[in-house]
Amino acid sequence: MLTDLPSADLHTYRSDQTEPADFDEFWAGTLAEAAAHDIDVRREPVRTGLTTIDTYDVTFRGYAGQEVRAWLRVPAGHQGPLPAVVQYVGYGGGRGHALASLLWASAGFAHLHMDTRGQGAGWSVGETPDPAPAGPQVPGVMTRGIRNPADYYYRRLTTDAVRAVDAARSLPEIDSGRIAVLGGSQGGGLALAVAGLRDDLAAAVAFVPFLCDFPRATRITDEYPYREIADYLKTHRESVDQVHRTLAYFDGVNHARRARASALFSVALMDETCPPSTVYGAFHAYAGPRRILVWEYNGHEGGGILDEARALDFLREHLTPTATP
Amino acid sequence: MLTDLPSADLHTYRSDQTEPADFDEFWAGTLAEAAAHDIDVRREPVRTGLTTIDTYDVTFRGYAGQEVRAWLRVPAGHQGPLPAVVQYVGYGGGRGHALASLLWASAGFAHLHMDTRGQGAGWSVGETPDPAPAGPQVPGVMTRGIRNPADYYYRRLTTDAVRAVDAARSLPEIDSGRIAVLGGSQGGGLALAVAGLRDDLAAAVAFVPFLCDFPRATRITDEYPYREIADYLKTHRESVDQVHRTLAYFDGVNHARRARASALFSVALMDETCPPSTVYGAFHAYAGPRRILVWEYNGHEGGGILDEARALDFLREHLTPTATP
Amino acid sequence: MLTDLPSADLHTYRSDQTEPADFDEFWAGTLAEAAAHDIDVRREPVRTGLTTIDTYDVTFRGYAGQEVRAWLRVPAGHQGPLPAVVQYVGYGGGRGHALASLLWASAGFAHLHMDTRGQGAGWSVGETPDPAPAGPQVPGVMTRGIRNPADYYYRRLTTDAVRAVDAARSLPEIDSGRIAVLGGSQGGGLALAVAGLRDDLAAAVAFVPFLCDFPRATRITDEYPYREIADYLKTHRESVDQVHRTLAYFDGVNHARRARASALFSVALMDETCPPSTVYGAFHAYAGPRRILVWEYNGHEGGGILDEARALDFLREHLTPTATP
Amino acid sequence: MLTDLPSADLHTYRSDQTEPADFDEFWAGTLAEAAAHDIDVRREPVRTGLTTIDTYDVTFRGYAGQEVRAWLRVPAGHQGPLPAVVQYVGYGGGRGHALASLLWASAGFAHLHMDTRGQGAGWSVGETPDPAPAGPQVPGVMTRGIRNPADYYYRRLTTDAVRAVDAARSLPEIDSGRIAVLGGSQGGGLALAVAGLRDDLAAAVAFVPFLCDFPRATRITDEYPYREIADYLKTHRESVDQVHRTLAYFDGVNHARRARASALFSVALMDETCPPSTVYGAFHAYAGPRRILVWEYNGHEGGGILDEARALDFLREHLTPTATP
Amino acid sequence: MLTDLPSADLHTYRSDQTEPADFDEFWAGTLAEAAAHDIDVRREPVRTGLTTIDTYDVTFRGYAGQEVRAWLRVPAGHQGPLPAVVQYVGYGGGRGHALASLLWASAGFAHLHMDTRGQGAGWSVGETPDPAPAGPQVPGVMTRGIRNPADYYYRRLTTDAVRAVDAARSLPEIDSGRIAVLGGSQGGGLALAVAGLRDDLAAAVAFVPFLCDFPRATRITDEYPYREIADYLKTHRESVDQVHRTLAYFDGVNHARRARASALFSVALMDETCPPSTVYGAFHAYAGPRRILVWEYNGHEGGGILDEARALDFLREHLTPTATP
Amino acid sequence: MLTDLPSADLHTYRSDQTEPADFDEFWAGTLAEAAAHDIDVRREPVRTGLTTIDTYDVTFRGYAGQEVRAWLRVPAGHQGPLPAVVQYVGYGGGRGHALASLLWASAGFAHLHMDTRGQGAGWSVGETPDPAPAGPQVPGVMTRGIRNPADYYYRRLTTDAVRAVDAARSLPEIDSGRIAVLGGSQGGGLALAVAGLRDDLAAAVAFVPFLCDFPRATRITDEYPYREIADYLKTHRESVDQVHRTLAYFDGVNHARRARASALFSVALMDETCPPSTVYGAFHAYAGPRRILVWEYNGHEGGGILDEARALDFLREHLTPTATP
Repeated sequence: MLTDLPSADLHTYRSDQTEPADFDEFWAGTLAEAAAHDIDVRREPVRTGLTTIDTYDVTFRGYAGQEVRAWLRVPAGHQGPLPAVVQYVGYGGGRGHALASLLWASAGFAHLHMDTRGQGAGWSVGETPDPAPAGPQVPGVMTRGIRNPADYYYRRLTTDAVRAVDAARSLPEIDSGRIAVLGGSQGGGLALAVAGLRDDLAAAVAFVPFLCDFPRATRITDEYPYREIADYLKTHRESVDQVHRTLAYFDGVNHARRARASALFSVALMDETCPPSTVYGAFHAYAGPRRILVWEYNGHEGGGILDEARALDFLREHLTPTATP
Repeated sequence: MLTDLPSADLHTYRSDQTEPADFDEFWAGTLAEAAAHDIDVRREPVRTGLTTIDTYDVTFRGYAGQEVRAWLRVPAGHQGPLPAVVQYVGYGGGRGHALASLLWASAGFAHLHMDTRGQGAGWSVGETPDPAPAGPQVPGVMTRGIRNPADYYYRRLTTDAVRAVDAARSLPEIDSGRIAVLGGSQGGGLALAVAGLRDDLAAAVAFVPFLCDFPRATRITDEYPYREIADYLKTHRESVDQVHRTLAYFDGVNHARRARASALFSVALMDETCPPSTVYGAFHAYAGPRRILVWEYNGHEGGGILDEARALDFLREHLTPTATP
Repeated sequence: MLTDLPSADLHTYRSDQTEPADFDEFWAGTLAEAAAHDIDVRREPVRTGLTTIDTYDVTFRGYAGQEVRAWLRVPAGHQGPLPAVVQYVGYGGGRGHALASLLWASAGFAHLHMDTRGQGAGWSVGETPDPAPAGPQVPGVMTRGIRNPADYYYRRLTTDAVRAVDAARSLPEIDSGRIAVLGGSQGGGLALAVAGLRDDLAAAVAFVPFLCDFPRATRITDEYPYREIADYLKTHRESVDQVHRTLAYFDGVNHARRARASALFSVALMDETCPPSTVYGAFHAYAGPRRILVWEYNGHEGGGILDEARALDFLREHLTPTATP
Repeated sequence: MLTDLPSADLHTYRSDQTEPADFDEFWAGTLAEAAAHDIDVRREPVRTGLTTIDTYDVTFRGYAGQEVRAWLRVPAGHQGPLPAVVQYVGYGGGRGHALASLLWASAGFAHLHMDTRGQGAGWSVGETPDPAPAGPQVPGVMTRGIRNPADYYYRRLTTDAVRAVDAARSLPEIDSGRIAVLGGSQGGGLALAVAGLRDDLAAAVAFVPFLCDFPRATRITDEYPYREIADYLKTHRESVDQVHRTLAYFDGVNHARRARASALFSVALMDETCPPSTVYGAFHAYAGPRRILVWEYNGHEGGGILDEARALDFLREHLTPTATP
Repeated sequence: MLTDLPSADLHTYRSDQTEPADFDEFWAGTLAEAAAHDIDVRREPVRTGLTTIDTYDVTFRGYAGQEVRAWLRVPAGHQGPLPAVVQYVGYGGGRGHALASLLWASAGFAHLHMDTRGQGAGWSVGETPDPAPAGPQVPGVMTRGIRNPADYYYRRLTTDAVRAVDAARSLPEIDSGRIAVLGGSQGGGLALAVAGLRDDLAAAVAFVPFLCDFPRATRITDEYPYREIADYLKTHRESVDQVHRTLAYFDGVNHARRARASALFSVALMDETCPPSTVYGAFHAYAGPRRILVWEYNGHEGGGILDEARALDFLREHLTPTATP
Repeated sequence: MLTDLPSADLHTYRSDQTEPADFDEFWAGTLAEAAAHDIDVRREPVRTGLTTIDTYDVTFRGYAGQEVRAWLRVPAGHQGPLPAVVQYVGYGGGRGHALASLLWASAGFAHLHMDTRGQGAGWSVGETPDPAPAGPQVPGVMTRGIRNPADYYYRRLTTDAVRAVDAARSLPEIDSGRIAVLGGSQGGGLALAVAGLRDDLAAAVAFVPFLCDFPRATRITDEYPYREIADYLKTHRESVDQVHRTLAYFDGVNHARRARASALFSVALMDETCPPSTVYGAFHAYAGPRRILVWEYNGHEGGGILDEARALDFLREHLTPTATP
């Protein structure tokens, strides 16, 4: 059943999320700090047994110069610089097994599939640790360091995501003028953040994005992972304002207000995990060209493989050679 | 937690399932009836946007000559007859979207992905109907026609699965001496059935197979789809013996007793859907060479992509050109 | 708790369901096709051990002339043509055991209790099959043939229900001017459909009717069986409009707009299965004289035996001998 | 799935329940005290609208001479003393609506349907209060007065049940030599208790009886109502022995050891509410002639209407006129 | 997630609960009847092993002069009359173990912790029975005697609560001008009732109070214990008006309208058990000085120990010696 | 219901957990490393409003010299060195609010209530972070660093717990010869670990201890937090042996084999979180004098306040002045 506002109200809904006065300064400082470390991309070929795709185990330097892993998949025997998809992963998972996620490379893209620090044990495996102190928190990463924007987990992960594009740009197989960021749920939230923080992207794709419109999201759903925040505030009752001050720096709504790349969103009207109004909150705030796929009878699976099929068309349209003079 | 016998007891467990006296006659008659119809394989190329894989929408004649759909995926620009994987789908799903399941073709196999009659609306889509009268039944297909082996749904579906191999053999891309059947859950149960009903397979792979050891399975799990049978008997209380007489014709244990192809099984010790003893019931009965992957802390997802990775090795081993004089 | 609109809003709620342009034509054609088969009512007395009620196992020809079963119960030693109740059964069940449902015959009515094709294994047994192809569908009958009105399961079942009245009219024990249709949930939905499709009924009784106001029902409840439709559309994402086009032919709201017999509805304000607004959607659309029993603190059980007690009074009022010149 | 021992072990299972030394004395005193009050049966005809059954609202004096209600249903226009069924009700319910439970009278029996003190608001209504102090207890009646056999709720209810037979014997419609007691769940437990406490019954019928083998029952199921006892002991941790001492006076196993009337039991092997071993505990202890209906795939609904159909045959066999010289 | 109206709407929400014409008369009569019995406070010192607190097992006469138990805890070696907290317990519990609830005495108050008649087996133990007839009811005490205000369980318990203050006033350790009533959930509802029924209190503290705004509460939550009322009305469908007439005498909204002592409320915006609008219903109706603690991300646990910490400050403020001339 | 072996089998159950060859060496090294940092106990008095208890906010140096917080509560105006209880907290919580947990100080003990690093947001608050890299893990701390004993979370927390006793010994209020460690669940597991790692304790109390008998625990319960390990292994399928090698260093069974202080355990036979056999696994292995409280009808709440009441007696017995020459 519908988990949020009726369809008509979603079209007029606008998020109330506010911007911290130093939002841009906070992120400029954060990224400058990361950029002080060389990107230092390394890679090892992986024997997967696949004959149509070449796979590499990639390492680059993310937040604070810490090592972040990724898979690079390219069509076997490819020629010339390829358009690229930099993909971020949904909550709980890591970059997964080398044999998974063959779609983008099979469609002719270079596919850089970034691992997620400190996750990677939920629904898919990962290898990247999160080397940072963990204050009192509820299980999961949503409240790791949440009392202070500088300590918050998503400061580190978002920085990794921004740096993954730098890593992509440094690879000879990739045409740096034809890079898109893409992801679903947490991966979609990261794609929006990167779209707001970089100006060199050809496109951004965010399926049923998470990490958007926190003030509303934390009050209208009981589902994890948004609920981790509510669980934390259930015990740390006196930190409500402080926590929301932190979250404003990481809200996809605020990132969307700064984005310029063409974007494809998807939203599912029966989504309990990322309620549709929170997705529309980011969509309506998105400052660049935007489209949205609406799935009326879906939950957080969204459009599933149809989301990907539509994104394939969308990316072909925006990542054509002519688009990159 | 463990959902069945402790590990040591699984190794000594043997199924009590009995064989109907006319088991072989029943199936010989059923398959002869289907073989009276020409296999009539047709195919249309599908535009998927993939550059490394060619995809075809295939139709062949299954049970009673009824049309059954499948996807055929082959490496783009392949040369010479390929080893092939004929895959059957898990309960509720159909052959899915053309963009899904790229693994086998990416690894150099011809991949024939058979649709499932009358399912195809659960977790993946399908197109093949089940043109047969539906007697009183509980929701799902487990009790469709269950009062009589001749009317039972799985008589039709198993016949389709056997015929899919005939369809594969008729395709020029496929080396008919190097065909394996493969599937998970219901797909694994069908792979076992086909392995018992054909003598021309190079290998069979059954991940956490369903449709095995019904007398025990229907009594030790509350999970669907085995539970559909219990639900039916809850109302049709006087049909217990009749239903079990029907099921004996379709039990993977009885099919396994006749199989000769090399087989790879997997089993998960925390599987509630296909309790491990029922898988071992079929495994211990399997008459050909056999191996089993044991996943100690998994449920019905079994080994997931690791099951596939191990199967990839297994198939390379058994479907090498030298294996087919 | 209340599962839908507050009470005051229910009184002003009107369904948005639209009518297909060829609604009447569709049904006229469907019923004409069925009427081309003789009703061919046959019956066998059943030994139940009851001394106050005579019971018969009845067979008549329903959709496409297919055989449909029913129980006929009449007071033992009855005299003269009796007023009659034709009853339809709730989702999942069949006509049940011969010893069940003694109320109407014990109250002096002839009681024709129609079986439900292809159900009859859920909460009560049945014997009538549904001889029709089953396309890809989710478990249950709600999506069987749903892509096309001509193939939809409820086309067949509704036709059976209309024909059951013909069967009743043909029985010598029954006064054909004093026939009411009655049912709860799916049975209530069928009673409304028959009331819209026939003009010879003395009364119609629909307890907490199902099959009403599909566009809203499929969006506001997570409960089965409405949810079967949502489950189907969750996978068959591109069929939303097509499915709703089919459903409009079967919506109790559209049938109610054509009904003329006096009707008694019931509705329960805590009903999650058939949300009260959907019942009011049909009630407010009902074109004949109408009353509604409102149960404030009930779920889908509605008024239970009080619904039946009130219906007994209602039927006595509308099925008196003087009502039938 | 099976909720208790495998079938073979049920046949050899014997309850460990022990007997209090003064068990017989306790009950003799209790019943003598009740018998000191005149049974004082009164009745009012009820207008139900039924034409085949006459219904009366009956009051008699039960425990401590307190008024207990019941329905008496007899075939309309009956002649001569009838065989009778005294029925007790399942946990939570009361005698229900006058229009319900028409089976026994429709089959030619006088049917005395006893109300249950202080229940009658769960699944069916009742009118009889339980005028007794309620000590600290968990919700429900299972722990009302449980610290002392003299105060325990079931001392009062069992006495009512014994007295209901006295009430039946006093009615002119009833042949006092042809009286059976019958019930399901709590009603079955009461039937066993009455069978152990009276020597003038023609038969006893206990469907999936409750109130049997408490020491085991309270440890092997999480389902209510047995769980009420576990809930109480969860808080009143130091009362475990005291509570079990009380329960021994009310255990169907101990009553069964004293019963002599022919008995029909039923048991369901997937019953979580009254686990099958506890039913077998009473069945194997039953001192009179006994039979048991075994439903392999049912839960606490047991055989449902098939239990009643079989009981109808059983009662015809044991309540024939010739059985009562 | 929010379980009720958004925050802004809570501030303007006013309860629709009406007052019975004889509300004051009803309570005046009830309390006069109780006052006809001497309060008869007795106490026994309890050996707890604590060195900083003296504990007594207290008995006084409550409703109808029936014995009610309580704990009295005072700082060991205290001097002079102390300010006092009379505490009432949440639903299901009793006064608990002597070693529990040390806060108030450790903070320098005399703490009279009243037992709850007929509860005391849920989450904490009790010893006080409820010597009254139990009519048909659902499990729990919410519907015990609910057909008539004179018989309703909460008439007796509320009277006990009023009398507990008389008991406190009679104790030499307690300064009768500095008595506060306090409780959470049911205890909070009782505190409000006592605040409305007495004029000699220095303060009242009600954490997430229960027993408020019944007409709305019984319709907007599925959680127990409010749901007991809905469960009762689900079966006793014809008693809706009668039940609400009874409840109006016991609604905290009506008591609040008469209260004069300074009050501290708390409310939790994610409370499903006592939905926030029902708390605000009582809060806005409260006739004395009032404050409310709002916990945005909490359920029925409310502010937990922070509620108590704030109440400690509040009580120090209102129970200072100077406050009692 | 019973969640594990029947009572008789629990008495004979012995854990199969094995000891790493370098178990003692591992811990000796770990503790030596911590001891290289001065314990550096600091404390600030806290204004709680309590009059009978003095409370201090304590900081000491735990693992790697990192700061760990604790509350110290002592009877106000105490004289001379007191016997002390060092308490560890259950999973998810921290040391909680200063106003909570007044029992031990009210009973005359010095009470050092240690915070738990990186938890403290679940059911009670904390302030102590866990400054360590978090590798891929599932939510919670059970799999933080689990691939290597040196990195495992419980290496750090156990070291803190050992050091807390050093902190206690350094306090002038505390008689260092009369110190007991105590806790429930995780706190109980830590108490056992400290009892195995120190030889200067007067007593150890472990209520329903967690962290015991991992090989069995991870296979027989679905409840968190043991299930975190199963969740991890569900994805990291190839790390089963590695994970169990790590866990052996932290298993309460192995610590118990080395303990010498008198111990009081409790166990609950309906505990799903810490199944009783795992508690008995540690109990039977405990090398010092031992007793166990058995709660037959309890879950993980164990004996609740009765556990504490019995522990109060036990501690008085073992922490008497004469016990400390």
